[in-house]
Amino acid sequence: MTDIVAGVDIGGTNTVIGFVTSEGDVLSEGRLSTADYAFAEDFVEALSAKIVEMQKGRNDLKLRGIGIGAPNANFHKGTIELAPNLRWKGIVPLGDMMEHKSGLTVRLTNDANAAALGEMMFGAAKGMKDFIILTLGTGLGSGIVVGGEVVYGHTGFAGELGHLTVVAGGRVCGCGRRGCLETYASATGLVRTVLSLLSDRREESILRNMKSSEITSRRVAEAAAAGDVIAAEAMDQTARMIALGIANSVVFSSPEAIFLFGGLAQAGDAIIVPTRKYTDELVQPVFRGTFSILPSGLPEARAAVLGASALIWKEIK
Amino acid sequence: MTDIVAGVDIGGTNTVIGFVTSEGDVLSEGRLSTADYAFAEDFVEALSAKIVEMQKGRNDLKLRGIGIGAPNANFHKGTIELAPNLRWKGIVPLGDMMEHKSGLTVRLTNDANAAALGEMMFGAAKGMKDFIILTLGTGLGSGIVVGGEVVYGHTGFAGELGHLTVVAGGRVCGCGRRGCLETYASATGLVRTVLSLLSDRREESILRNMKSSEITSRRVAEAAAAGDVIAAEAMDQTARMIALGIANSVVFSSPEAIFLFGGLAQAGDAIIVPTRKYTDELVQPVFRGTFSILPSGLPEARAAVLGASALIWKEIK
Repeated sequence: MTDIVAGVDIGGTNTVIGFVTSEGDVLSEGRLSTADYAFAEDFVEALSAKIVEMQKGRNDLKLRGIGIGAPNANFHKGTIELAPNLRWKGIVPLGDMMEHKSGLTVRLTNDANAAALGEMMFGAAKGMKDFIILTLGTGLGSGIVVGGEVVYGHTGFAGELGHLTVVAGGRVCGCGRRGCLETYASATGLVRTVLSLLSDRREESILRNMKSSEITSRRVAEAAAAGDVIAAEAMDQTARMIALGIANSVVFSSPEAIFLFGGLAQAGDAIIVPTRKYTDELVQPVFRGTFSILPSGLPEARAAVLGASALIWKEIK
Repeated sequence: MTDIVAGVDIGGTNTVIGFVTSEGDVLSEGRLSTADYAFAEDFVEALSAKIVEMQKGRNDLKLRGIGIGAPNANFHKGTIELAPNLRWKGIVPLGDMMEHKSGLTVRLTNDANAAALGEMMFGAAKGMKDFIILTLGTGLGSGIVVGGEVVYGHTGFAGELGHLTVVAGGRVCGCGRRGCLETYASATGLVRTVLSLLSDRREESILRNMKSSEITSRRVAEAAAAGDVIAAEAMDQTARMIALGIANSVVFSSPEAIFLFGGLAQAGDAIIVPTRKYTDELVQPVFRGTFSILPSGLPEARAAVLGASALIWKEIK
């Protein structure tokens, strides 16, 4: 018998399920369309049925529990609360619903916390007790590990470094305030910086030939690599803002490493090298040289499922 | 027999020693002049002798250990490292030296972490698992408790919220950078804000009749209470900066409470009421109403000794 955990990554559009071993091998994978289910009750039925279906003919597998990564998930309560990108409104007790349906242990947390757990169990943070993972996607998510435990806080929603206020009166943020870190230091933030530079500067740029809505962090990174001045400047300014976020996080928990993950981190050295340079400049001197800035050690496509499964594996181990 | 712990508060000028019971009663107190000892070895001799002297004729007391709060103390290593306000240079292994001398368990941490432990064991944070204490004195110190444990981090120096960068290119800080929170949100920061307002504004103020070097946070608070416009504005701006620091801390660890302690906190409602108002305005909406901003529950004069003793009491309990 091989012990496995179902790692479930719930996104606004799709849900991915993976059967994950204690070593982080994904034995099989399934998918559901999250958006097809207007009611959480129906989604729970479908998810349970999918997990049962994935077990068929696999009597060699023993399912030990279900770990779920989902937007606005509360680890303490096992709920998904007021998630703007999901159809299920209000406070959904998904953990209890899934436990009742499956008879198994079910744990929930948000995507970034799941990524941190995945990094700790299966990735580049193995053996680390104090680290932070930043997920640089549409927004900036963060998972903070202190003394080997994810920081959930009193509410269960701790680790919102994307909403550090870094520019007084700065860019409008989806949270209703201005100047939040994620309006600068994210894939979306990079694109906003490009738009700002296109208005402010006069240099030629291939980005001038794209609709604003077509500019992506990937295209900016490609343009920068091809020598586009505006794109390169946008990458540089973005790295500086990531560095400012890191500097303001390090004073809090003095981590051993900061991992960069997600869309913008795919740019690799083009983003990580200037981020290191600016962090060295911006961080409180006492912490200079005490931590590393590293790429995630998890494969992008599998990270969410691995991280979700780590919620359960961490309890078993 | 009554079990006691020696709580030792090492300051640049004086060292205070208190024998503290498990209930937080201080049975006796002693003092040493820190500044008299050019070498840490001599200080250790003197401190040990003082503790022995304090035990004389008290066969009813059983000393269980020595907890020390000191500037730049490293909990992990039991060292005091590069403390600018002490005569002992370099890295001083005070913990090992005191353990060797006394044969007792010795623990060290910095003043703000000790204050956090004191608040948790003997003060207003009893029963809380997630809270932050801000000490608003010459600088801004912080002790952060996550899941019932003080956050020391990889280096042992975590919890430096005074060095959050809150104003790009702002006031010069003792750490060598600019715009650190403590240059605004501290007793010293309040005085700097007064000086800035005296240059910027035209209103009459009794503060105009003092030498800059004579202006203290206490005098500013008194002037504000007496209706001085400049003083009141300085208190308000300072509260707003404390609030910004709180807003940027809450996204990290989502505490149940933030405690204000130290010189500036002595102003009571005059500082805490506007700090609450601005925090409500500045904090990420998801955390609004999820935490309290409270005065410390420890008496100012005893807090350091109580906190230092809590280092040992926490291990015994």
